[in-house]
Amino acid sequence: MSQAVQSVNVGIIGFGTVGSGTARIILQNAGLIERRTGKKIILRRIADLDTERDRGVAIPQGVLTTDAFEIINDPAIDVVVELIGGIEPAKKFMLAALKNGKHVVTANKALLATHGTEIFTEADAQHRSIGFEAAVAGGIPIIKVMREGLAANNILSIYGIINGTSNYILTRMTKEGAPFDMVLKDAQRLGYAEADPTFDIEGIDTAHKLTLLASLSYGIGLSFDKVYKEGITAITPEDIAYASELGYKIKLLAIAKVVDSEIELRVHPTMLPEDYLISKVDDVLNAVYVVGDAVGETMYYGRGAGDMPTGSAVVSDIIDIASRGETSCERRGCSFLNAAQNAGTGFKIKDISDIETMYYFRFTVVDKPGVLSKISGVLGEHNISISAVIQKGRREGEAVPLVVLTHKAKERDIVNAVREIDKTPVVAAKTRFIRVEDKEYN
Amino acid sequence: MSQAVQSVNVGIIGFGTVGSGTARIILQNAGLIERRTGKKIILRRIADLDTERDRGVAIPQGVLTTDAFEIINDPAIDVVVELIGGIEPAKKFMLAALKNGKHVVTANKALLATHGTEIFTEADAQHRSIGFEAAVAGGIPIIKVMREGLAANNILSIYGIINGTSNYILTRMTKEGAPFDMVLKDAQRLGYAEADPTFDIEGIDTAHKLTLLASLSYGIGLSFDKVYKEGITAITPEDIAYASELGYKIKLLAIAKVVDSEIELRVHPTMLPEDYLISKVDDVLNAVYVVGDAVGETMYYGRGAGDMPTGSAVVSDIIDIASRGETSCERRGCSFLNAAQNAGTGFKIKDISDIETMYYFRFTVVDKPGVLSKISGVLGEHNISISAVIQKGRREGEAVPLVVLTHKAKERDIVNAVREIDKTPVVAAKTRFIRVEDKEYN
Repeated sequence: MSQAVQSVNVGIIGFGTVGSGTARIILQNAGLIERRTGKKIILRRIADLDTERDRGVAIPQGVLTTDAFEIINDPAIDVVVELIGGIEPAKKFMLAALKNGKHVVTANKALLATHGTEIFTEADAQHRSIGFEAAVAGGIPIIKVMREGLAANNILSIYGIINGTSNYILTRMTKEGAPFDMVLKDAQRLGYAEADPTFDIEGIDTAHKLTLLASLSYGIGLSFDKVYKEGITAITPEDIAYASELGYKIKLLAIAKVVDSEIELRVHPTMLPEDYLISKVDDVLNAVYVVGDAVGETMYYGRGAGDMPTGSAVVSDIIDIASRGETSCERRGCSFLNAAQNAGTGFKIKDISDIETMYYFRFTVVDKPGVLSKISGVLGEHNISISAVIQKGRREGEAVPLVVLTHKAKERDIVNAVREIDKTPVVAAKTRFIRVEDKEYN
Repeated sequence: MSQAVQSVNVGIIGFGTVGSGTARIILQNAGLIERRTGKKIILRRIADLDTERDRGVAIPQGVLTTDAFEIINDPAIDVVVELIGGIEPAKKFMLAALKNGKHVVTANKALLATHGTEIFTEADAQHRSIGFEAAVAGGIPIIKVMREGLAANNILSIYGIINGTSNYILTRMTKEGAPFDMVLKDAQRLGYAEADPTFDIEGIDTAHKLTLLASLSYGIGLSFDKVYKEGITAITPEDIAYASELGYKIKLLAIAKVVDSEIELRVHPTMLPEDYLISKVDDVLNAVYVVGDAVGETMYYGRGAGDMPTGSAVVSDIIDIASRGETSCERRGCSFLNAAQNAGTGFKIKDISDIETMYYFRFTVVDKPGVLSKISGVLGEHNISISAVIQKGRREGEAVPLVVLTHKAKERDIVNAVREIDKTPVVAAKTRFIRVEDKEYN
């Protein structure tokens, strides 16, 4: 009852989409937050090179500045919110803010996944917090869930749809049978994909986020370089149609799982049984399916991007910092993500060649007798056994697709078998394969 | 890096299902938890009247006792975990533990929903925490999500499947077309329903949990008495089949939502469009769908009961208490759930008569010409307009079902119309109605 209201002064660097959402939430919901938590959040400054453009938020006078260092060097500011994205000058700003004794909140997954060790080490040294709830899955409080909600669990596996752009593209390709390039162009036109979509469609953004989730879950430090990354650019409407015929959907998944005391870290298009809950997560929506040894299966679903959802995560971090107080580093390690802190957990990251899963192949073969026998022979020699075959549209002597679904096999055997098969004269184009995750068989 | 390991000494009262799971997690995952959080959780005592039965957990010597007060009065114990359930002696134990300066963790939704004000007030006075993550939706960290993860949001609505027993029964009725009584008996035989299933099948357990969620979300205190409660005992396989024909599934839902600045709090069987993600949550699984003004739609899914999932939630609360330290009440109100603390939020709880939604009717009528006209006439007089009608199995002069789906209507009008219709000679049995939640129309 006698809670003293404490104020926390916030400066935002970067007044773009997420910056606008964050400012709007702080300004509109300050009363609600104070009633709920006893903390008053004060939006003291916003820095952006463009202070003129109308973002649809009424910013009080004197708040806007073009100089980030007016925030970083302001002794009255407690929390610096970095929302400019990219590596520099975001990193410089963050380190300077920490050195000045500020807590930092950020949505910058690329920076944390690739330069996080330096940043978390500095936060540790300064006894300050880095809040990064907004860096993974937008408004879904997945960082809090992994770090606190499931803290009692050995995390057995994580399967995440954590890139809205890819999920939007795959969803439209699935619903309309449209090719990748066409849907990408449309997504760019509609603002769901950036002018340079590389990070989204090549799985890099997904890998940044997986790096953070896996580090929290397994204490393996920030292992972005060790994440296997494969995007969705080679997926065709035909693959999606065959997947459907076999009872699967294709999603770009972030996968982390413990197998034989090693960690698999991989991002790739994945065939999932269409009746899985996560298979029904469509359009720009995100979901993270997490299995813990105590809690069993859980899933977290919501908007992975956008001004207000991501702003919701940013503001929850600010509230947490206000609630925990300045000594939170001693209480629940700032250095949580540092490999050094977690040394000796004994987890090794598995090379992609060593994984075992089910595979979908689409061979392009010359339609003549004996082709299936030839291909299944090579697969058999590489210890790969077949669970289903689809052969359609017979056109004697012409190139036709031959679809094969395998039982569990080793990636190394798959790659070797494909190399051998692609050299045989019956194959008319490079063979494509897609990994399958199916609890029934895995 | 220099985190000092702090120990927290735990005593568990109640060595049943959840008590065993909690003990197992503490004993098995203590090393993991210490690496992750820097806190050592020590299981010091477990009290239960039965200290002989084998629970499949190896409990160190000297830990078991038959006397709960050996825990409550042990000065070395920091956290008392209450897992006996029910009102007394759980309440007495909890209050005594708080008075002795212990933090309390509990899974007891019935006690908190009905006597929580007294308990939270005592916790406040003693500056101690009550952890109750395990009280709602088992292993899903929904309390943390609502209190912290979505703290920046005005919560617009909550839709929860938060009673595994009811969901199991409805799922089997749906899949098998089996009647309620038969599935209930089977559920009891399989251990999914208790010998006295009243709390589960009459919506009371769901209402206990909704009371806690709504209090966190709206600052309306613990309003269990004001929750509208209707169970699933009157649902028939015919209703489920008609719902399916209309594109809906029937789920026992906990609903809290803001409509015209008032709060609706209701628990009842609900028809939901079958393509909603939450409609696909079957068997004993739980899910809570939450819409916030900033975050938009989110959903949280997992096991709502069981030794290990619920134990996961209990242990996460213990870790939180260890991490926050003793002064957490000043930091993030222990009194969070007290109405007094939240006075003046201005929310009034809406009477069920005042709600507006869509309705499904199953009339049992004598099959003769003019019946539909008579019934639709009465509905029209009560401002209820029809969106669909199903009339099947014509048997002139006999009682047959007439199914009607309405557009949005007022509950008061619905009740009045049914009263009038049930008095007419064309009606052969009491009319049943089921509320429908459909974003398309609501």
